[in-house]
Amino acid sequence: MQFFEDLRIGDKSVLGSYTFSAEAVMAFGREFDPQAFHTDAEAAKQSSFGALCASGWHTTAAWMRCFVDCRAREDAQRAAQGEPSATLGPSPGFRNLKWTRPVYAGDTITFAQQIVDLRALASRPRWGLVTALNSAENQRQQPVLSFTGMIFVERRPG
Amino acid sequence: MQFFEDLRIGDKSVLGSYTFSAEAVMAFGREFDPQAFHTDAEAAKQSSFGALCASGWHTTAAWMRCFVDCRAREDAQRAAQGEPSATLGPSPGFRNLKWTRPVYAGDTITFAQQIVDLRALASRPRWGLVTALNSAENQRQQPVLSFTGMIFVERRPG
Repeated sequence: MQFFEDLRIGDKSVLGSYTFSAEAVMAFGREFDPQAFHTDAEAAKQSSFGALCASGWHTTAAWMRCFVDCRAREDAQRAAQGEPSATLGPSPGFRNLKWTRPVYAGDTITFAQQIVDLRALASRPRWGLVTALNSAENQRQQPVLSFTGMIFVERRPG
Repeated sequence: MQFFEDLRIGDKSVLGSYTFSAEAVMAFGREFDPQAFHTDAEAAKQSSFGALCASGWHTTAAWMRCFVDCRAREDAQRAAQGEPSATLGPSPGFRNLKWTRPVYAGDTITFAQQIVDLRALASRPRWGLVTALNSAENQRQQPVLSFTGMIFVERRPG
């Protein structure tokens, strides 16, 4: 992760992509969201979704995986250049999460992020609070998810 | 699920509880949130959390599991009394999700819900939009999660 001082409002990045295999959709559905349209391809055809689709919480978990992997790749690049990376702190939460379209088995979802606010907090001098608008679209460039997320990012020491 | 017409603003319910085993915390972390404090009990001791803790997205997925299981139990009770149940529709999304405290391996989290708004939509005559404040607390009665969720619930036919 870049240090808080190196981030700019308006910065955009593509976090990565995640393909929702039918097996992964059903495994997540059985464990966390056992409704027929997430666990049974035949029954899903009779549902309002019309086909097997991912739990909305599977989509948000996949966002997290892409976010963490993207930061790890960037940290490795900085380490290869002898540069330090900032520590990611906890997330206080998110706002306005919308699942705008179903994610169907077989879909590949690409996640992107744009920084919309940066706030240094007197109460937590080690950290800055980063607010970002997250969006996701499928392979037909249709939006499937958006939310405004917040996360603490380490400030440059000194 | 009760039909939309049978719900009342202010209705409260306990959805259920979920115990976060260390194995489940690490399995979810490895798949969706590979940061050391979610995947490695020893490394987690050195993190800002101080011990192995669940991904915030694991907590929301556990909420969904408790919500679905609670509705399935209620539907079974109604069926045993010869009463029909409403179909749960899609969720348009959530607002103001806050992870207020870490969920540690071994914690048992209890999820509760209160209805705060009911809206019949002219554009979707089959469905009503239910808004509920969701909250979760650990076995020490400390709040760990809150969010305002929205979901479509079937209206009574006719």
